[in-house]
Amino acid sequence: MTETNERLDAVFAHIEANRDDFVTRVMDYVRHPSISAHDIGIREVAALLVNHLEGLGFEAEAVATRNHPMVLGKRIVSPDKPTVLLYGHYDVQPPDPLELWESPPFEPTIRNGRIYARGIGDNKGQHFAQLLAIESHLAVHGELPCNVIFLLEGEEEIGSPHIAEFVREHADRLDADLVVTSDGPLHESGAPVVTFGVRGVAGFELRARTASRDVHSGNFGGVVPNPLWTLVHLLATMKSPEGEITIAGLTEPVIPATNSEREAVSRLPLDLDAVKADLGLTKLDEPRERGYYDRLMFHPTLTINGLHGGYAGPGMKTVLPCEAFVKCDIRLVEPLTPDYVFEKVAAHVAEHAPDVEFVPLNGMLPSKTPMDSPFVPHIRRAVLAARGVEPLMYPTVGGSLPDYVFTKILGKPAFVIPYANADEANHAPNENLEIVRFIDGIRTGAALLQELSA
Amino acid sequence: MTETNERLDAVFAHIEANRDDFVTRVMDYVRHPSISAHDIGIREVAALLVNHLEGLGFEAEAVATRNHPMVLGKRIVSPDKPTVLLYGHYDVQPPDPLELWESPPFEPTIRNGRIYARGIGDNKGQHFAQLLAIESHLAVHGELPCNVIFLLEGEEEIGSPHIAEFVREHADRLDADLVVTSDGPLHESGAPVVTFGVRGVAGFELRARTASRDVHSGNFGGVVPNPLWTLVHLLATMKSPEGEITIAGLTEPVIPATNSEREAVSRLPLDLDAVKADLGLTKLDEPRERGYYDRLMFHPTLTINGLHGGYAGPGMKTVLPCEAFVKCDIRLVEPLTPDYVFEKVAAHVAEHAPDVEFVPLNGMLPSKTPMDSPFVPHIRRAVLAARGVEPLMYPTVGGSLPDYVFTKILGKPAFVIPYANADEANHAPNENLEIVRFIDGIRTGAALLQELSA
Repeated sequence: MTETNERLDAVFAHIEANRDDFVTRVMDYVRHPSISAHDIGIREVAALLVNHLEGLGFEAEAVATRNHPMVLGKRIVSPDKPTVLLYGHYDVQPPDPLELWESPPFEPTIRNGRIYARGIGDNKGQHFAQLLAIESHLAVHGELPCNVIFLLEGEEEIGSPHIAEFVREHADRLDADLVVTSDGPLHESGAPVVTFGVRGVAGFELRARTASRDVHSGNFGGVVPNPLWTLVHLLATMKSPEGEITIAGLTEPVIPATNSEREAVSRLPLDLDAVKADLGLTKLDEPRERGYYDRLMFHPTLTINGLHGGYAGPGMKTVLPCEAFVKCDIRLVEPLTPDYVFEKVAAHVAEHAPDVEFVPLNGMLPSKTPMDSPFVPHIRRAVLAARGVEPLMYPTVGGSLPDYVFTKILGKPAFVIPYANADEANHAPNENLEIVRFIDGIRTGAALLQELSA
Repeated sequence: MTETNERLDAVFAHIEANRDDFVTRVMDYVRHPSISAHDIGIREVAALLVNHLEGLGFEAEAVATRNHPMVLGKRIVSPDKPTVLLYGHYDVQPPDPLELWESPPFEPTIRNGRIYARGIGDNKGQHFAQLLAIESHLAVHGELPCNVIFLLEGEEEIGSPHIAEFVREHADRLDADLVVTSDGPLHESGAPVVTFGVRGVAGFELRARTASRDVHSGNFGGVVPNPLWTLVHLLATMKSPEGEITIAGLTEPVIPATNSEREAVSRLPLDLDAVKADLGLTKLDEPRERGYYDRLMFHPTLTINGLHGGYAGPGMKTVLPCEAFVKCDIRLVEPLTPDYVFEKVAAHVAEHAPDVEFVPLNGMLPSKTPMDSPFVPHIRRAVLAARGVEPLMYPTVGGSLPDYVFTKILGKPAFVIPYANADEANHAPNENLEIVRFIDGIRTGAALLQELSA
């Protein structure tokens, strides 16, 4: 048995011995609301975290931003050791609709081996597992195996509006070798996952307005332009029936998947029949020949999120409406950026439907870490040690995490190693975390610190 | 001066002498609600009309249908005289929203030379003018100049669901030489109008459903088919950006406008700049080169009345919706029928988007009377006598009147000679009728009876 293994087994034993206490303490933590959208409890929870980090021997501070503070903590063991930046967020989604919760969102309750509470999965339970991993190392060995920077954001659930500015301004305090985020779900089988990127997104709205009022289709059909036809014909120029985005120039820069990405994808489990059965689908979207993970990782997508105009009631109303709008999002692929996408969409709209108003909405840059990063072997060993199986490796995923601030601004490799069960119901009523996944998370966090120093 | 002129002038003098009384009496009539959609007051007003017709020496009856009764009255002067069937409807639209009425809808009120009340324009004030024209002839001359059949429907505002059946069943009691309807508006200048047809309409809905639930666009964009894209691409095959309907076979049977129709249209007034200014338009719909009245009369139109699916709130929501629908109407041109249109649309949808559900809604057959009908000179002379100017002649108009039951089932020429001011606000709050137009209507009705016998 190697020294690494011995040291880690001692930490694992500590975690097992303190299992009940850790569960009690994470429940105490999520009892404090910290709803960024409503500015409830944010500063209280930030202060509590600073206090917690200081108790673990970290130099810690709630650093002011233009809105909610960033909790920043650092414990440097030795300049010769690698430094990992652990990112998470201490804000949570609003708990509405309250009536759908089986137990109150801020009164954590255990049922069937799961803790139910707002934020238990997304993200408080996950970064609390990291904190307990650190605590366990310190309790057993008196010191950490590597340097740790903790960065906990208070605005992730409202789109991370200030993290890029913060990271630029405080780059010197964030100087790590790699970034690890524990957020999002494990594979639905419970298998561990490591994700190397997030797709990024650019959302926009197109607004068409023709006459100054709705008119009668019998009196003005064929005379007054119809904003719904305008949008239909414009949208038809933006994506072909065969599923390819046809916005001029938009997809040109896209970098094809690397061999290591393709190889990683080929190893991902896929039960297409189960996916189709779950979603009630008879077929996948066009293009028909494109592989499942190809669609989700290596091609930009253009989704209509909503399209509305005119009569919506029962039966028939012979109206010719005067306004309509469509909301879309484009999932990005490196090196696309929201700005590039907005520019191309705006130019396309200006050419094909100059009367239509283009309104950019939110955007987030994609992020990607090479799959041959030197940290991959450490991460794989850590997951294997904590979980007993190799992790599934995802080149990129669709959700939005602000990982680009680490890869693009700090220029560091960034990995997402989630701890939550796939049915965590984050952003929804009855958010929950399986206790076994929470303990696995503490183990994984502990193993990661150990393996990074090996 | 001819005998016709003398007889008519005497009637005109009677109308002028009884002007105030006629206004009082039409206000008494519209005080009775007769809301077909809510089945309020229908039978009461039908009974009142039968009584009124009997008072004018008509053989009259409220004839039962499967829903609201038809009021049918007949006064035959001589089998050698022509017989005119006067059609109208005694039901009215619901008066909602009540709070927008300046005076209560069923408490007729005069303001600025207009009577305000629900139904005063559409259609009670207009057929009451016909009744007063008959009364005036009888008062002055003791007899009518021609035979008159009165048919007043109680279901026009709910789509005339039983009139075709009624007309088929009672064709022998409706044996007239021509049909005249006074409904709808005069030209906005107040100029008199004679209309030879109505376009007819076929409405339908297309429903697209993909997954069994909405999903996250990041997790499933590009994988799960999007019902809004399905509808966009389907609709794009149904009408070109250049404004031509491209539903396979749909427009093929359309009969081009006759020379007399084109000639009539060339004489219609048109102030395109005023139309555009009124509607806030910078341009007309495609096709760019098509004439204004050509669009409204001689080409079928495909209007999207409403299109809805997915997110409609503020900002962005990265949802991939699972269902969407679009409602459309097609204005017909002879010889198109709703059944033919439904068949072609259904076949087109089945070919281009077999998963989309086609749901036919309401339909009404078009109706057209030849512009060289032998009754045209009589009608022109009548309008000239009553109004002092020649009428504008419209080959067809966009509104829906069940005139096809007269032209297609009875095989008779049918004309619409409206009496209401263009801003009558029918179907809307503050429906009104200019008193001068009401009196003009009585004069026109009187002149028509006289001229038909000339």
